Amino acid sequence: MDIGFIGLGEMGVAMVQNMLKAGHTVRVWNRSPQRAEPLAAAGARVVSSPAEAFSGDAVFSMLADDAALRAVIDAQLLEHAPRGLIHVNMATISVALAEELAHAHALRGLHYVAAPVLGRPDVAAAGKLTIVAGGPAEAIDRVQPVFDVIGQKTWRIGSLPQQANVMKLAANFMLAAAVETLGEAASLVTGHGVAMQDFLDVITAGLFPGPVYQGYGKMIAERRYEPALFKARLGLKDVRLALAAADAVSTPLPVASVVRDSLIEAIAHGDGEKDFAVLGQVSARRAGR
Amino acid sequence: MDIGFIGLGEMGVAMVQNMLKAGHTVRVWNRSPQRAEPLAAAGARVVSSPAEAFSGDAVFSMLADDAALRAVIDAQLLEHAPRGLIHVNMATISVALAEELAHAHALRGLHYVAAPVLGRPDVAAAGKLTIVAGGPAEAIDRVQPVFDVIGQKTWRIGSLPQQANVMKLAANFMLAAAVETLGEAASLVTGHGVAMQDFLDVITAGLFPGPVYQGYGKMIAERRYEPALFKARLGLKDVRLALAAADAVSTPLPVASVVRDSLIEAIAHGDGEKDFAVLGQVSARRAGR
Amino acid sequence: MDIGFIGLGEMGVAMVQNMLKAGHTVRVWNRSPQRAEPLAAAGARVVSSPAEAFSGDAVFSMLADDAALRAVIDAQLLEHAPRGLIHVNMATISVALAEELAHAHALRGLHYVAAPVLGRPDVAAAGKLTIVAGGPAEAIDRVQPVFDVIGQKTWRIGSLPQQANVMKLAANFMLAAAVETLGEAASLVTGHGVAMQDFLDVITAGLFPGPVYQGYGKMIAERRYEPALFKARLGLKDVRLALAAADAVSTPLPVASVVRDSLIEAIAHGDGEKDFAVLGQVSARRAGR
Amino acid sequence: MDIGFIGLGEMGVAMVQNMLKAGHTVRVWNRSPQRAEPLAAAGARVVSSPAEAFSGDAVFSMLADDAALRAVIDAQLLEHAPRGLIHVNMATISVALAEELAHAHALRGLHYVAAPVLGRPDVAAAGKLTIVAGGPAEAIDRVQPVFDVIGQKTWRIGSLPQQANVMKLAANFMLAAAVETLGEAASLVTGHGVAMQDFLDVITAGLFPGPVYQGYGKMIAERRYEPALFKARLGLKDVRLALAAADAVSTPLPVASVVRDSLIEAIAHGDGEKDFAVLGQVSARRAGR
Repeated sequence: MDIGFIGLGEMGVAMVQNMLKAGHTVRVWNRSPQRAEPLAAAGARVVSSPAEAFSGDAVFSMLADDAALRAVIDAQLLEHAPRGLIHVNMATISVALAEELAHAHALRGLHYVAAPVLGRPDVAAAGKLTIVAGGPAEAIDRVQPVFDVIGQKTWRIGSLPQQANVMKLAANFMLAAAVETLGEAASLVTGHGVAMQDFLDVITAGLFPGPVYQGYGKMIAERRYEPALFKARLGLKDVRLALAAADAVSTPLPVASVVRDSLIEAIAHGDGEKDFAVLGQVSARRAGR
Repeated sequence: MDIGFIGLGEMGVAMVQNMLKAGHTVRVWNRSPQRAEPLAAAGARVVSSPAEAFSGDAVFSMLADDAALRAVIDAQLLEHAPRGLIHVNMATISVALAEELAHAHALRGLHYVAAPVLGRPDVAAAGKLTIVAGGPAEAIDRVQPVFDVIGQKTWRIGSLPQQANVMKLAANFMLAAAVETLGEAASLVTGHGVAMQDFLDVITAGLFPGPVYQGYGKMIAERRYEPALFKARLGLKDVRLALAAADAVSTPLPVASVVRDSLIEAIAHGDGEKDFAVLGQVSARRAGR
Repeated sequence: MDIGFIGLGEMGVAMVQNMLKAGHTVRVWNRSPQRAEPLAAAGARVVSSPAEAFSGDAVFSMLADDAALRAVIDAQLLEHAPRGLIHVNMATISVALAEELAHAHALRGLHYVAAPVLGRPDVAAAGKLTIVAGGPAEAIDRVQPVFDVIGQKTWRIGSLPQQANVMKLAANFMLAAAVETLGEAASLVTGHGVAMQDFLDVITAGLFPGPVYQGYGKMIAERRYEPALFKARLGLKDVRLALAAADAVSTPLPVASVVRDSLIEAIAHGDGEKDFAVLGQVSARRAGR
Repeated sequence: MDIGFIGLGEMGVAMVQNMLKAGHTVRVWNRSPQRAEPLAAAGARVVSSPAEAFSGDAVFSMLADDAALRAVIDAQLLEHAPRGLIHVNMATISVALAEELAHAHALRGLHYVAAPVLGRPDVAAAGKLTIVAGGPAEAIDRVQPVFDVIGQKTWRIGSLPQQANVMKLAANFMLAAAVETLGEAASLVTGHGVAMQDFLDVITAGLFPGPVYQGYGKMIAERRYEPALFKARLGLKDVRLALAAADAVSTPLPVASVVRDSLIEAIAHGDGEKDFAVLGQVSARRAGR
């Protein structure tokens, strides 16, 4: 396929590499052009404007947040895009913006697919992402071959793109809540002289298997929050988005409110670039330890 | 072994049956004696006072809560118990009472082992409980053969009995927090028209495998909270105990505070006897659904 | 003085009336022009564009929220305004927008004063508002005579306009927290058979005199939330802004998080247009009453 | 009147002094007898057992907490007390214990009046306490002359003694919530460069007059938490009791949960003996300041 790709952060680069390996033609664009160089060496065609990427069979975007997206995907860009183009937005953005973009694309005869991913850069590099796709079924059908080279599984959520964003935000909220809870439990057990690793061994053997409790639990047990797999700053961004999405449908999320406060506290102590397992540190500090 | 057993609720009965099957002699006592009848038929010796149970090689107790325990295990009972007797308390009680009991037993030359269990009655019946044991190593060594017939795994936590109780309460706190979070996530996704079961499929396939998210998630997705596997009323009891144990070591647990408030709200709406997945109902009601 | 006035809600109308009574010339503009009619009868000059209001000695604006303000006060309007014009924005807006506006005005040689007010329409009508003013001292000096006819007291906060907005939002956060607390206390005392009015009599006689506890407390005691003096919907708007202002300086506000959740719950139950004393209803409902 | 008095803390001593000044006969008892010496000099008769105090027309008690009360007021003491004796308990105790004591006294033909007070030792010394009395009207009538010399106002709440305790706990909960809110607001405004004292001036001039906001606000503005007028440790005790009283009637108090967590955090940082305005410090620390 002839694919445009906008946004070459760690995740974007890994996705493009897998697209190239699978034989797709990829026109790449990034605000800082040097990020594109290694991809050029691997066969990507580097273009000099988002508009040049916004063409072909489909264009994928993976930008940092709502602001970055608004700075690139504007009315003019959509106006000049070829009718029928499919835009697959893989970033974690607000539900409100996803809704707005779906509408703006439809008005101009473009297809908008929201396809946020679960998984970190190492998972992206291995082509093992979990993709949560929302939007018109025919559009998703057409890009499914591309999804198959960057992810191991695509979940189709519904015909409204923003529903995929809701799903992603809810998943990240659950992740954040689990890490906050682990941090609090660590403070409780260590306060009574029990080693956090012993506690982890017990709960991950039965109630809570899986990568979240084991991975973040270990970081908390060892009080080692670097290198960051998922930064506290980004965790806070997603919790804010989950709260906003919930607010939009008049739904209180009291646990998310607690996690938000804890993440703000982490940022206030200069820990925004650390892994968001640093929530364990927030809890320990509150207990004076 | 010659074993006494005090407290014949569902869990106690299942444990005694496994002890009998393994060939142990068991003297059983319960406040309501009719609970002992089926066990008598299976070979247990029914005694008419706690004191008669409080003898032999070891005595196990599985009473409902702190109050029930205090009503049975008093100074007089300990005074008349044979020196060197091992008392294994398998109930989920407060850390403060565990500490007090450890001290009271030691004063009278008795051994006190705290061995709270993870697992519900069906797990107990299958002899597959997870046992978290705290107390003097030699005492635990001596009762280990009994643990092996009622549980599939014994975790030894430390020499202070109350540390096993802390572990159990921390595990139940994590459970309660996971269920509360599931309930909130359900309100978020369904508020945007996404089916909870679809969301569950995504998260249990990757981030959150295991019985907790699948089991409680399903109840929440189906809004079906009966029959109760773990009652909201008992969940609240354990969260209160976790908060008290944390308070005793000056540790705030903000997520536990949120869960406590939600469980109280469930009780206030008459749902105390339902499964504590009814936290999903609490969240839905707050969102006006 | 020759004054422009933009935004003729209840508050704006009351302010303009007092300006007219004091002999000022007022050019008024509102999106729905019929709101201007009664003022025309009282001597105001009705203009047909914001730009016509944006001239003279000073222009005052009192628009509903950030979105309404952004829709009216745009780059073009500022570009064409006469240099040296003072813009006094009396609305409760976000700290971020206040900062942005201060910057945008300064760039074009205009003076920006933030002067949010404490007080409801009846207080505005009586010319008894409390004005919290932030911005350049000389600009405030020049509009002080106008402040003196719409308010009984002007507090000068600092030279940064947004500091006045912070102050207003913090005051409204305190108000919301007091009402939430009253609601919870009402549930506690009535749950034990004590009349809320008896409780109110005790606390307002000593600890908590003043209009907030008496006024909102009475509404809660009588479970009567209409007519609304301050709507729950607007209370939520302000709590959201307070949380955002706090987030911007990495400050958790856990009580504000709780109040936000409660107000969302009120909205979810269709009570957004009721007085925000309806927080008492939220608390009562949670307790099953 | 012939009065017994049990518990000679700061509050108790001040009350007894006022009783003596008014001409009453007072038999005093305290666990540490040296606390009684200055009162003996002022005319009190020092007795050597609680039982000797538990006689005459009425006995007043002012003990620190539930545990201290249980240690002194036991079944034997009540058994030997003269029938018809009125016991006025002025301490802030749990609602559950108040209910239990009311029952235990009634069984033995004794009258139990709960009369917790609002006011600190300096207010007690001036005879200006606010008394919140619950219990049988005739019993309160008989001790009213004594109330009149230790307090400036007696509020009669109802015929159930524990209702007076609920009232007191609800009042202290409101106090704690106001101080927590002040602390959070201080972090918000100072985070934006606004002086807390300026903010206080604005809110106490209008919305929030009265001693609570002015007094605690000033301590927070000056970040000066000693000498303590009301210790954080005691504030936490009362918030715990309010939460327990609410739990007993299935009422969630989310703001109280937040305040409890903050007070625990203060204790964890060694600030339990400081004034509970130290909640301002907790909030500042969370914001990294």
